Amino acid sequence: MPDVRVVLVEPKFEGNVGAVARVMANFDVHELCLIRPCEVGDIAYHRAKHGAFILDDMRVVESLDDALSNCFFVVGTSGVVTKGDKNYVRIPVSAHSFAKRLKGYTEKVAIVFGREDIGLLQDELARCDMLVHIPSSEKYPVLNLSHAVGVILYEMFGFEIKPPTPADNEEKERLFSFFDNLLEAISYPEVRKKSTSSMFRKMMGRAIPTKYEYNTIMGVIGDAAKAIEGQKFNRPK
Amino acid sequence: MPDVRVVLVEPKFEGNVGAVARVMANFDVHELCLIRPCEVGDIAYHRAKHGAFILDDMRVVESLDDALSNCFFVVGTSGVVTKGDKNYVRIPVSAHSFAKRLKGYTEKVAIVFGREDIGLLQDELARCDMLVHIPSSEKYPVLNLSHAVGVILYEMFGFEIKPPTPADNEEKERLFSFFDNLLEAISYPEVRKKSTSSMFRKMMGRAIPTKYEYNTIMGVIGDAAKAIEGQKFNRPK
Repeated sequence: MPDVRVVLVEPKFEGNVGAVARVMANFDVHELCLIRPCEVGDIAYHRAKHGAFILDDMRVVESLDDALSNCFFVVGTSGVVTKGDKNYVRIPVSAHSFAKRLKGYTEKVAIVFGREDIGLLQDELARCDMLVHIPSSEKYPVLNLSHAVGVILYEMFGFEIKPPTPADNEEKERLFSFFDNLLEAISYPEVRKKSTSSMFRKMMGRAIPTKYEYNTIMGVIGDAAKAIEGQKFNRPK
Repeated sequence: MPDVRVVLVEPKFEGNVGAVARVMANFDVHELCLIRPCEVGDIAYHRAKHGAFILDDMRVVESLDDALSNCFFVVGTSGVVTKGDKNYVRIPVSAHSFAKRLKGYTEKVAIVFGREDIGLLQDELARCDMLVHIPSSEKYPVLNLSHAVGVILYEMFGFEIKPPTPADNEEKERLFSFFDNLLEAISYPEVRKKSTSSMFRKMMGRAIPTKYEYNTIMGVIGDAAKAIEGQKFNRPK
């Protein structure tokens, strides 16, 4: 099972925070980080039961950046699936297939859960490598926060097959910067640059490429950008 | 999905009953039956949110026999897997394989959940046709009642998400040929060309890109190859 950090963005009810701590303990996930939460007191501890130690050890931070420190992979959760194909951030994988894809991963994975009422905001979703959705009733799809955490952790619990070594964070970032260089080199329209760059990141996130795959693609993209840039200099004046 | 009745045996906390109603609504299961429950009042209704109608319609009965009327199949749940061979309900199936086994079943199925503290008694387990278990931490296996209901119903609900329009085969092949052109353009080592091309294909296969993503990446790769090739012709002799 990957090294999971559960991140709650601005939880409003301490009872939910406590219930999340309990269900985390139920599935052996112990690292909790809250961003600008409600007060966490007696009610939370009461609901946490034997997961109280998770509340003792949790981190409280001010920003998503702080919450995601040292995380190799960031997963956002969403109760609502929008249908626009163009909104690539909104193409979620199911909790089940998410768990299958992360099988045997040993890096730090942050799973980010939004507010009880409005979930995650667009710019928060944009920080995520992958979006996970829990299939549920069309009439009432919004699960209680702790139930959502429970289902996701339940799906992740107890997978054992080891995949090939995944790329590390530095390699990933290098690939993404090479891709940006390529966009630069081909004079990609400025207005679409950011969204295409972000789309590439998400798509690679879903593929979870191995070290070997990242490096190979990086080689191709890097060489392409260099070839274009190099020839620009040699171009007849 | 089978016609499911959720049966709670002597629930002690109305908050749990309300949370069960909510998660039932989340997974389109509407029939709730309580055996000798605690009072079910404001706290339960508050926790039930849009599942309140399930509390309005629930049945309250005095015995397990009454609760199981008209049920074709009775499933017991247990947080603890006992190892004693003598225990006749000793072999539980996992929530996942339980859900798989019941797929396509259309008869009435009762899923019986025990008390928050001591679960189901021996004679209650004896009434069950099957025992279901949710794999969980060895240190703290006991899930909150509503979390247990949530996981079981989640598994029964199934996990298909309608994906966005995937690229069609022609688009995919065009992308792959553009990628090959790019390898060509950057004078990629002949000996590795085939394996890198095939690797790219597999990696994109895992990402399952949408029509939009394929076309965007195709644009980038196509333009890159063209930029390199075009400049070769303009190169000073």
